Amino acid sequence: MSGHLAVIGLGPGDPRYLTPEAQEALITAQALYGYGPYLDRVPACVGQSRHASDNREEGARADAALRHAASGARVAVVSGGDPGVFAMAAVVCERIKMGPESWRALDVAFVPGITAMLAVAARIGAPFGHDFCALSLSDNLKPWELVERRLDAAAGAGFVIALYNPVSRARPWQFGNAVERLRRHLPETTPVIFGRAVGRPDEHVSVTTLAEAGATSADMATLIIVGTRETRMIARTGRSPLVYTPRAAAEVSA
Amino acid sequence: MSGHLAVIGLGPGDPRYLTPEAQEALITAQALYGYGPYLDRVPACVGQSRHASDNREEGARADAALRHAASGARVAVVSGGDPGVFAMAAVVCERIKMGPESWRALDVAFVPGITAMLAVAARIGAPFGHDFCALSLSDNLKPWELVERRLDAAAGAGFVIALYNPVSRARPWQFGNAVERLRRHLPETTPVIFGRAVGRPDEHVSVTTLAEAGATSADMATLIIVGTRETRMIARTGRSPLVYTPRAAAEVSA
Repeated sequence: MSGHLAVIGLGPGDPRYLTPEAQEALITAQALYGYGPYLDRVPACVGQSRHASDNREEGARADAALRHAASGARVAVVSGGDPGVFAMAAVVCERIKMGPESWRALDVAFVPGITAMLAVAARIGAPFGHDFCALSLSDNLKPWELVERRLDAAAGAGFVIALYNPVSRARPWQFGNAVERLRRHLPETTPVIFGRAVGRPDEHVSVTTLAEAGATSADMATLIIVGTRETRMIARTGRSPLVYTPRAAAEVSA
Repeated sequence: MSGHLAVIGLGPGDPRYLTPEAQEALITAQALYGYGPYLDRVPACVGQSRHASDNREEGARADAALRHAASGARVAVVSGGDPGVFAMAAVVCERIKMGPESWRALDVAFVPGITAMLAVAARIGAPFGHDFCALSLSDNLKPWELVERRLDAAAGAGFVIALYNPVSRARPWQFGNAVERLRRHLPETTPVIFGRAVGRPDEHVSVTTLAEAGATSADMATLIIVGTRETRMIARTGRSPLVYTPRAAAEVSA
């Protein structure tokens, strides 16, 4: 008997972002595993068990889901956004790599979702209109020196930068340090976008400059987009400004 | 009278990837503008006009859609994948910036979609489990020297790299050149993923190594993912291998 494990992206939270593929994978699962607040977004299904766990228990959550699937069940792990972007897909792969042979025999599917950086970008215009990168500011799983090296490389070469996991209670200084680092490469006027909870009642998306970004409040659920030298704003009377990065770059500008 | 313009991401092509938000935006539009093959993916709606244009007419397409919306209509521009990733959202913003004041008065909405890099990644595992970047290999809008500088920066700092627009008839040598450039930074055994047409009948996703990547065929619709030194494969009996990049990086490794 070979079980089935789906690793599902819920998107930013509003059901309008949930793809039909993800919807079907949720409905057909016999058991759901996930961080509590993500599971709370999924309507109840008769006969489906739910297994909530804490944000920091990702490895144990993946193990439990894999064991359950290996027993022959149809199991789903839910992620916010896209499961492949700083979320559960890599955790599940790591555990399959380390785990028993039976886990490699499982039918495993990854179901993509709208990741936070693209949801926030869509609210404001087209900040990722040119080459871009995504970087987690958490130094739980990599040394801070590597984060700094990547900030230097990305800003120096003119990539738009998406910052995931900018701040947490245990990591209060990292975001301010990153802003200081970026100011070595980019003008003070560079647009910086702060977005959280897109599509949910507490949605908040705002634009500031690199000079002001360090003083702007952020938390673990905030997604930050730092523009390039080319990123521009369009002021609009009676409407929020648009922010975009032109497709063309005439020269090595950063 | 103020019109409405929606810039809509269709995802990779299969309707299972189309979000409810995008579906609603398509149905409520009075006119659709887009590259012909993308428009062909959208079922016909009674009373809705369609305006197909060629792949290279993006500026003219955006102008026509903006003019139509400014006349008071409800207009949609369709993009494959996500409109904010090397697609129509930046074009529309560029045209609004240059255009008449009436275009800045329009109600403009960007509707995110599943972009190719995340659709391909989901087919193979979790190659973007760590920090990553996305780079267009087209040198139509930027000098090739800038592409090379970005490849150096990204591979040197240990980002997973997604390559969009790797090859076209007019750009036959760029992808091979990029592979040679990446071999300066990364081992020959680095996993490289080629994906195209995810979710469509002609879907093809394969894995090779950086040593072999230059000889692997690609076209304009191929999305290529180049791993890091840490990216790993999981061989599975009777199943396709999984490819993932671990979340943790112990040191500056590239």
